Amino acid sequence: MVKRMGAGTLVFENMPKIRGFASVAGKKEAEGPLRALFDKIIYDSRGGAETYEEAESRLQQEAALLAMEKSGLHSADIDYVFAGDLLNQCVGSSFGMKVYGIPFLGQYGACSTMAQALISGAVFTESGAANNALCVTSSHFCAAERQYRFPMEYGEVRTPTAQWTVTGAGACVLSQNEGAAKIKAAAVGKITDMQITDSNNMGAAMAPAAADTIMRFLRDTGADIADFDRVITGDLGLVGSDILHELLSKEGVDVCGRHSDCGLLIFDREAQDVHAGGSGCGCCASVLCSKILPDLQSGRLRNILFIATGALLSATTAQQGKSIPSIAHLVNITV
Amino acid sequence: MVKRMGAGTLVFENMPKIRGFASVAGKKEAEGPLRALFDKIIYDSRGGAETYEEAESRLQQEAALLAMEKSGLHSADIDYVFAGDLLNQCVGSSFGMKVYGIPFLGQYGACSTMAQALISGAVFTESGAANNALCVTSSHFCAAERQYRFPMEYGEVRTPTAQWTVTGAGACVLSQNEGAAKIKAAAVGKITDMQITDSNNMGAAMAPAAADTIMRFLRDTGADIADFDRVITGDLGLVGSDILHELLSKEGVDVCGRHSDCGLLIFDREAQDVHAGGSGCGCCASVLCSKILPDLQSGRLRNILFIATGALLSATTAQQGKSIPSIAHLVNITV
Repeated sequence: MVKRMGAGTLVFENMPKIRGFASVAGKKEAEGPLRALFDKIIYDSRGGAETYEEAESRLQQEAALLAMEKSGLHSADIDYVFAGDLLNQCVGSSFGMKVYGIPFLGQYGACSTMAQALISGAVFTESGAANNALCVTSSHFCAAERQYRFPMEYGEVRTPTAQWTVTGAGACVLSQNEGAAKIKAAAVGKITDMQITDSNNMGAAMAPAAADTIMRFLRDTGADIADFDRVITGDLGLVGSDILHELLSKEGVDVCGRHSDCGLLIFDREAQDVHAGGSGCGCCASVLCSKILPDLQSGRLRNILFIATGALLSATTAQQGKSIPSIAHLVNITV
Repeated sequence: MVKRMGAGTLVFENMPKIRGFASVAGKKEAEGPLRALFDKIIYDSRGGAETYEEAESRLQQEAALLAMEKSGLHSADIDYVFAGDLLNQCVGSSFGMKVYGIPFLGQYGACSTMAQALISGAVFTESGAANNALCVTSSHFCAAERQYRFPMEYGEVRTPTAQWTVTGAGACVLSQNEGAAKIKAAAVGKITDMQITDSNNMGAAMAPAAADTIMRFLRDTGADIADFDRVITGDLGLVGSDILHELLSKEGVDVCGRHSDCGLLIFDREAQDVHAGGSGCGCCASVLCSKILPDLQSGRLRNILFIATGALLSATTAQQGKSIPSIAHLVNITV
C-alpha cells in the first residue's frame, strides 16, 4: 500500500524497484561531461527520420527498448507505459510508443514529466495494478526550438538566462521485485505562479515550485535535508539554482553543498555555449538514466532526492503575455 | 488493492466512489438535447476572459469547483487533481487548476483524457495514495478550431465526416468512501494505428482502438457485453460508431442495442449542423457528468462501460501527412 503523508506526499511501503534504465542522447550532449555514460548516441539531428518530430519519437523508442532489454523484459511483459514530451499533443510519445503495443498513459508536466511518470508508475506498481511499468520521456532541440521559438534556419540569438533544450531521452522500468534502486517516497508538485512572464528565464519561474515541493516533502515526512546524499533538480539551470538556494536558505535549509542540477550536469555550460544550462523532458530523464541511477547502483550514492521541474506554458500563452505557471515533482530514490 | 487481470486491465477491490461531479457547457451545447442537465452554462465564447484559451481554463475551474462543492469538499481536502485538455502543452489545465493549489498531475490522451484521469485517480485512491482525487477535462470550440484548423474569422467549410469540438468541461471527485456510483474495473488502451490520415475523419481512426479495448476487457475479465446496461463511447460520432458496430460484430459481439456515443448524445446532429457529432476532451466529460452519472445515481442505469476515445495527432503531424494513432480507455462504473 501507499502511505499518504499529506496532500501529494507519499511513502511506498514495498518500494517499487527500478529494474532497468537507459539513456539516449544527441551529438551536442555527447560532447558534454556525460559523454561516456549514455547508452546510445544519435549523431544526426534527424536520426534517419524524415522530421525532427519523428527523430524525437525514435529517441524514446530507443531508450525504452534499451531499458526493457536491460531489464530482461519484452514489451509484452510491461503492463503500462507512462510517457511524455514537450511537443504539441505529446506526439513524441504517441508516435514513439505506438510500436510497442503497451497500454499507454500519456503524461504532461513539461520538463517535470519524468518525475511525474515515475510517481504514477510507482503508485500503479505498489497498488498491484502493474507488475512492470515503463516510464519514458524525451525532448529534441530542433523540434522544440521551431515549435516554441523560431525556425531553425533563422539562427536566433539567445539571452543569457535562456536554457538549451536537450536532445535526449531516458527510460526506466519499474518492477515490484527486482532492482537495486528503489522508490521510497515522493511528493507531487502544486502549480506555483510568481507572475514571471519571461519565457527566456524559466529557471526563475520554476525555482519557487522546486522550493515549495522540497519544503513540503521535508515537513510531511519529517526528514532532514542532511538525510540525503544529493538533492538533484532538473532543470533549473544556473539562474534557477541560485534562486532555489536563496529560497531554501530563507526557510533554514542549506542545500548548497549537496545540490546538483541536471541542466548544469549535462553540458559544459561555458565551453558549449548553452547559456543558463540544459532543459527539456529529455534532460533530467537522460541524466537520471546515465549518471544518477548508475551512481546509486554502484553505491556512490545511497539516498537522493530527484526533483524535476516544469514550466507549464505554451507558445500561445507566452505570446498572449501570460505568466509561467510552474511545477516540481519529487522522487526519493534509495538503495 | 488493485487486481491485475492482464496488461492494462484492472479490477478495483474497494471500488473508488464518485463522490461528486459537475458539468459546464457552452451556448451551442445548451441548445442541444442535454440542455436541462448541465450544472452551468456559459453563453459567451470568451466567458468574460480575454482569450478563448483562458475561457477554456475557466470552464475547468467552474466544473472543478462545482464538483468539489457537490462533494462537500474544499480544495484543501483534495489530494491530487488529474487534469487534461487539447490545447498545446495542456495550458487549459495548468492555467485552470493553478488557482486551487492541489497537487497536480497533467494527463494527455486527447479526447480519451477523462477516462484516463478516472483510471489514474481510481488507482491512486484504491492504493491509499489519495483520500480524494479530482478528475477534470475540458475543450473549447474556438480554442481548438484555431489551434488545429483555421482562424475563426476564416469560416471554414467542414467535411461531412468532421466532428464539432464541444465547449464544455466535466469534473468528478473520487473518494475512498462516499458516493453511489463506483469504479469497479477499467482497461487502459493500447495505441492503434490503422494508417488513416484524414484528420477530418477521426471517428474512423478511433473506432478500432475502441473495439480493441472493449474486446480485451471482455476477454480479461470474463464479462459478457450483456452484463452492461449501456456501452457508452466518447467520441466516435456517427462514422466511428458504425465502424465500431461492424468491428465488434465480426468478433461476435452485438453492441448495437446497448451502445450510445457521447458525440451523438450532446448535439442534435442534423438540426445543429455538427456533421458527424461532437468531440473534444470536454465532450464525454460533460456528458458523463450531466447525463450518465445522474442516470446511475437515479437507478436508471446500474452497470455501464464508459469508453473514451482519443486521436493522438497534432496539427504538425497532420501537416506532415502522418497517420492518426488512436487510443481508447475503458471504465466500468456501477451502482
